[in-house]
Amino acid sequence: MPLEWSGLSPELLLVIDRDSTEPLRSQLERGVRDTIRSGRLQVGERLPSSRELASALGVSRGLVQDCYAQLQSEGYLVTRVGSATRVAAGACAPPAPQPRRPPAPRLLADFQAGVPDLAAFPVADWLWAMREAVRAMPASALDYGDPRGHALLREVVAGYLRRVRAAAADPERTVICSGYAQGLALTLRALARSGVRTVAYEDPGSHAVIGPAAAAAGLTAVPVPVDEHGVDVTALEATGARAVVVTPAHQWPTGVVLAPERRLALIEWAVRRDAVVVEDDYDAEFRYDREPVGALQGLAADRVVAIGTVSKSLVPALRIGWLLCPPALVDAIVADKHLSDRGSPTLDQLALARLIESGRFDRHLRRMRGVYGARCEALKAALAAHAPAIRLSGLAAGFHAVAHLDAAARPGVTEHSVIAAARGRAVGLYGMSAFRSTGAQSPAQLVLGFGNVNERAVTEGIAAVADLLA
Amino acid sequence: MPLEWSGLSPELLLVIDRDSTEPLRSQLERGVRDTIRSGRLQVGERLPSSRELASALGVSRGLVQDCYAQLQSEGYLVTRVGSATRVAAGACAPPAPQPRRPPAPRLLADFQAGVPDLAAFPVADWLWAMREAVRAMPASALDYGDPRGHALLREVVAGYLRRVRAAAADPERTVICSGYAQGLALTLRALARSGVRTVAYEDPGSHAVIGPAAAAAGLTAVPVPVDEHGVDVTALEATGARAVVVTPAHQWPTGVVLAPERRLALIEWAVRRDAVVVEDDYDAEFRYDREPVGALQGLAADRVVAIGTVSKSLVPALRIGWLLCPPALVDAIVADKHLSDRGSPTLDQLALARLIESGRFDRHLRRMRGVYGARCEALKAALAAHAPAIRLSGLAAGFHAVAHLDAAARPGVTEHSVIAAARGRAVGLYGMSAFRSTGAQSPAQLVLGFGNVNERAVTEGIAAVADLLA
Repeated sequence: MPLEWSGLSPELLLVIDRDSTEPLRSQLERGVRDTIRSGRLQVGERLPSSRELASALGVSRGLVQDCYAQLQSEGYLVTRVGSATRVAAGACAPPAPQPRRPPAPRLLADFQAGVPDLAAFPVADWLWAMREAVRAMPASALDYGDPRGHALLREVVAGYLRRVRAAAADPERTVICSGYAQGLALTLRALARSGVRTVAYEDPGSHAVIGPAAAAAGLTAVPVPVDEHGVDVTALEATGARAVVVTPAHQWPTGVVLAPERRLALIEWAVRRDAVVVEDDYDAEFRYDREPVGALQGLAADRVVAIGTVSKSLVPALRIGWLLCPPALVDAIVADKHLSDRGSPTLDQLALARLIESGRFDRHLRRMRGVYGARCEALKAALAAHAPAIRLSGLAAGFHAVAHLDAAARPGVTEHSVIAAARGRAVGLYGMSAFRSTGAQSPAQLVLGFGNVNERAVTEGIAAVADLLA
Repeated sequence: MPLEWSGLSPELLLVIDRDSTEPLRSQLERGVRDTIRSGRLQVGERLPSSRELASALGVSRGLVQDCYAQLQSEGYLVTRVGSATRVAAGACAPPAPQPRRPPAPRLLADFQAGVPDLAAFPVADWLWAMREAVRAMPASALDYGDPRGHALLREVVAGYLRRVRAAAADPERTVICSGYAQGLALTLRALARSGVRTVAYEDPGSHAVIGPAAAAAGLTAVPVPVDEHGVDVTALEATGARAVVVTPAHQWPTGVVLAPERRLALIEWAVRRDAVVVEDDYDAEFRYDREPVGALQGLAADRVVAIGTVSKSLVPALRIGWLLCPPALVDAIVADKHLSDRGSPTLDQLALARLIESGRFDRHLRRMRGVYGARCEALKAALAAHAPAIRLSGLAAGFHAVAHLDAAARPGVTEHSVIAAARGRAVGLYGMSAFRSTGAQSPAQLVLGFGNVNERAVTEGIAAVADLLA
């Protein structure tokens, strides 16, 4: 049986601050709501009459009545004719606030792969492009738009991909999305709807991303081994899968480039099995030894879904990517994009279109090729100086390399032991085992990202852990 | 048997422009790729030797060899030792380009509901907020972030919703998403994962949105009637559904405000049935007659998922929204957001946080309340002048109203006939039938949006079609 309020002083429960800029009525409403939510006034308890409360607080009775009426219409209070105002039965206390997660500690050098140089983001160019784009934009661009993305960005991206990636890109079949994760989710769901049951993925590779995405789409994901020529197409054939996710230009994370005969075998497999190749073209902009290998999509645009983003070329926080869709899948992908989020943010799209069109995007890429090339050289030099036995591979493109640990020379050394010891010296190292579907720690290899580590940190970081590696 | 190239002049196939800024090698590669893609060179056809082609084009032989090597590594060409270079078997012609969709014709007045005043978007404030946000931001903010959204925006949005919507908002359980569509998709999938099988929705209402979203999540969607007090909770109980999507502050599209006793009955139903209420809080910022009714979520934060966006308060093109999640669903929703797109764009989030914090968002809302209020008055005045028999309802909030057509007075008049006739006069009208789960055209009603129609267009548009209505 809940207590009556009589006898309690309402001033104890409700504090009114006459010096506040918040109107009295709003203060009063908030006070009563908080009193109910905190459990100080419980379900069924009677509130003081409007006359009593008004007199106790020194406010007008009308103000209290307005407050009660408002809280009644919100469901906090119930009033019946001829009876007191009480706390409504539905007004429960809110759940306890959730504790915050603690921040991660700072590292001397963090060799996490897949992160570009965040501090090199061309802030001024981006703001310029945003301003220019907004200035040129009609108000109608601010409504819900084409779920495929703004026509201008689709044109610009398709042109860019034709030029830089030798893709067979048609703006009408280009879909702007919020990055690789969404591109993959849309593709896998479209494949599931088209009757595909199994999707293969490269091993080592992104099983931690593709596995959950496939499961969410109702697909079974199966690994296919990667060797020094890229994904093993004979093994792929044996899985019976009718879709595969690959990284032909620079295999993630081994760094192998898919060999020409494998490229053709992959396309032949897709044609023969009526299968689809999902091409994750994640870092091909950054190639050091020669021109980047063109996208597989350019060879077989009706068999390949190409997914690209600006997460490596600019920064992940922009969340902008694209899909080049084969005719058989484009409608399903566009319908799903509409259902998923009604299209990506327009101002960001227009800014990116302006950035690319103006040549400032190319200029940034040229600059970053130099920056990453120098970091790559620093990494090679540091290892040569401090741990000459360590072989590096996968350096043709991008901003990560694979370090082959000389585990045979020191039995008992595992990826985990090296990583844990390095962490104790404030150096972030990451093992290949995380990318293997089995989690196997052998052969012991590190995936060394140098995108977001400057040359000094590369040198100092490697020096600090060199004895652990060799 | 494919033709040999001998006898054809390569200049006919490959045009090299020495005045172009594009490097010769890039021109040559593009030319050969295009020749293969367009089908002019077919699978198995022999290319001229590098010597022949170099001499024909007047370029160095090394350049042609580099070009052939590049196209071989991309899979367009095959070379065998002691044999000619030929077009590879996998190099198919790309699909025909897709035709463009024609643009929609311009209207004198378009009364489409759900669109705010696009031209009133505070462009200068947004660019200012973006600039300020970017200036204050550490580089680490440009990496992949918390899938729930940036901590700063979650704090600011939670504070805003506590203040303006009397929500029980905890930043730790606030998830930033890309708008209502994504918020709904995430919620319905989390409900499906928690064992819910059926979701109810208001009728009239958003069946066209909720139906496909529910189906995609594997849920059955069932309609529940709305009367003049809002959704019928007794009918809801009878459906057996354990989830319902409602618009309590201003029912979409009838404009009814959920009555206090219904609010409580809805919460009681949720507690009794262990059910979840999804609160679509789409336009409560704009209320004219009195203070907005607080969010249902504030009453029962462990039973209600509240979804809000800036699509009405600013513009849809920003694609920013939020979810207030009950403890039982928050983990599933956050995991799904991570899988769906790894979080919303960070710069946009930081800009919105700055816009709200600075008070410029509130200032925009105050201004727009005046603008929409004036348009609402113009609509009432135009109807009173030109079609006095037409009753309007649902005008307590937002920027749309329901016009009750006097169909009884003129048999044969249907929503469709009125809408088609108005379209012939370049006035966009929209019927309630589109919002009814059965598609019923009776009672004949129009949903008149005045958010993106200025006062003159409201007046002229109504004058142009008044004779069709009454």
